[in-house]
Amino acid sequence: MKDQSKIGIYKSVAEPFHVDFNGRLTMGVLGNHLLNCAGFHASERGFGMATLNSHNYTWVLSRLAVEMGDMPYQYEEFAIETWVENVYRLFTDRNFAILNKDGEKIGYARSVWAMIDIETRKPADLLILHGGSINDYICDEPCPIEKPSRIKVLSQECIDTIKAKYSDIDVNGHFNSIRYIEHILDLFPIDIYKTKHIKRFEMAYVAESYYGDEVSFFLDEVNPDEYHIEVKKNGNETVCRSKIIFQDNR
Amino acid sequence: MKDQSKIGIYKSVAEPFHVDFNGRLTMGVLGNHLLNCAGFHASERGFGMATLNSHNYTWVLSRLAVEMGDMPYQYEEFAIETWVENVYRLFTDRNFAILNKDGEKIGYARSVWAMIDIETRKPADLLILHGGSINDYICDEPCPIEKPSRIKVLSQECIDTIKAKYSDIDVNGHFNSIRYIEHILDLFPIDIYKTKHIKRFEMAYVAESYYGDEVSFFLDEVNPDEYHIEVKKNGNETVCRSKIIFQDNR
Repeated sequence: MKDQSKIGIYKSVAEPFHVDFNGRLTMGVLGNHLLNCAGFHASERGFGMATLNSHNYTWVLSRLAVEMGDMPYQYEEFAIETWVENVYRLFTDRNFAILNKDGEKIGYARSVWAMIDIETRKPADLLILHGGSINDYICDEPCPIEKPSRIKVLSQECIDTIKAKYSDIDVNGHFNSIRYIEHILDLFPIDIYKTKHIKRFEMAYVAESYYGDEVSFFLDEVNPDEYHIEVKKNGNETVCRSKIIFQDNR
Repeated sequence: MKDQSKIGIYKSVAEPFHVDFNGRLTMGVLGNHLLNCAGFHASERGFGMATLNSHNYTWVLSRLAVEMGDMPYQYEEFAIETWVENVYRLFTDRNFAILNKDGEKIGYARSVWAMIDIETRKPADLLILHGGSINDYICDEPCPIEKPSRIKVLSQECIDTIKAKYSDIDVNGHFNSIRYIEHILDLFPIDIYKTKHIKRFEMAYVAESYYGDEVSFFLDEVNPDEYHIEVKKNGNETVCRSKIIFQDNR
């Protein structure tokens, strides 16, 4: 199989309610598009959620890292390319390139996924999935950004707490992966987004939270433009961690 | 011009992070789709935001009323039809039909818009827009739901307060119209969404709120399945009102 055919490409447009006050697509919405494209690409190849669900398996997003040089502006078209970089027994690496309206690459993303048994919540062996055919989709397209890193947060001081509400909960009854991103972005005063943009954004999903959970946010300012965030539920159980690196606007 | 050509039709799919715990498209996401389609339809006819902005005018959504018999399920395709019902000097009525994956009408919506001068914030005369040509798009397609009603809220007891954050703010620097819908849906315990669905939903947008505003919610339970909500900023200024009518699931 020619490598190009292993890359899915999906077009979209920066909708007016999906951009921030700068008119740029928000990181939460971009994350949503990335996960959708992962789903489309997997489904088209027989590894999608819907197919897996009927076999009692589902994909679980473990890590996401995004680096953007530019963000699509309101009403602008953009495209997302996605492909499988590696398949291990318990994890698979899926990468992305984000292309602007002129087809130029303006950013990249890396994601790490596991597959679990819906009943037992135990990880499944990816190498035996469909007789190992997921390996046929491995593609060596370059993705010139660093892999998701290990994030450690030392702060014990909670800077915000929310209660998980109806709109936070996804079809699995879990706190929606995208909503965490939005709540994390909201930890920062709007002024930071006036002079800086997010150069790199990472999420590490650790555990699920549920409707009614108290979700608390802890933040380390590692250096003036780098923040590490830990999200805990009901006092002390880590549900996810995040890293944001800002960069001054030119 | 044949009436059918006056109706715009736009296809979409219920994305996994756009459905609630029941797997049904949320009212906020549907609202977003409706407003997008309004924008597409107007743009294609030379009355879109982008065109108007360059002439110092912009559309402002005043009222929205949605009635749904069913909501698209996760991964299902759906379509939205939209057309202009009436044009008055200061307002225009734009209607919508929502079609399920089989092309059957599963709901309708009505919206009322004004056009304002961006500088003065004063309403503009729609009848002289582009030499009155907006009238050419008036279409008598049926929209069998009641017009947006007058909503009155008596309660003086604030049931929730949020502070407007980064993710709440749109490209105009205003609290995002769709975010109000999400915050209003979040006033209700998740249990109500387990046994009931929203039959009718209304929004009346009155004034803008901004980053950092304290946004408070007041609610009247008019009868067991009908709630009127008022949203105020910084204590006492009304920013919008909403009406939700629930119906037991069959």
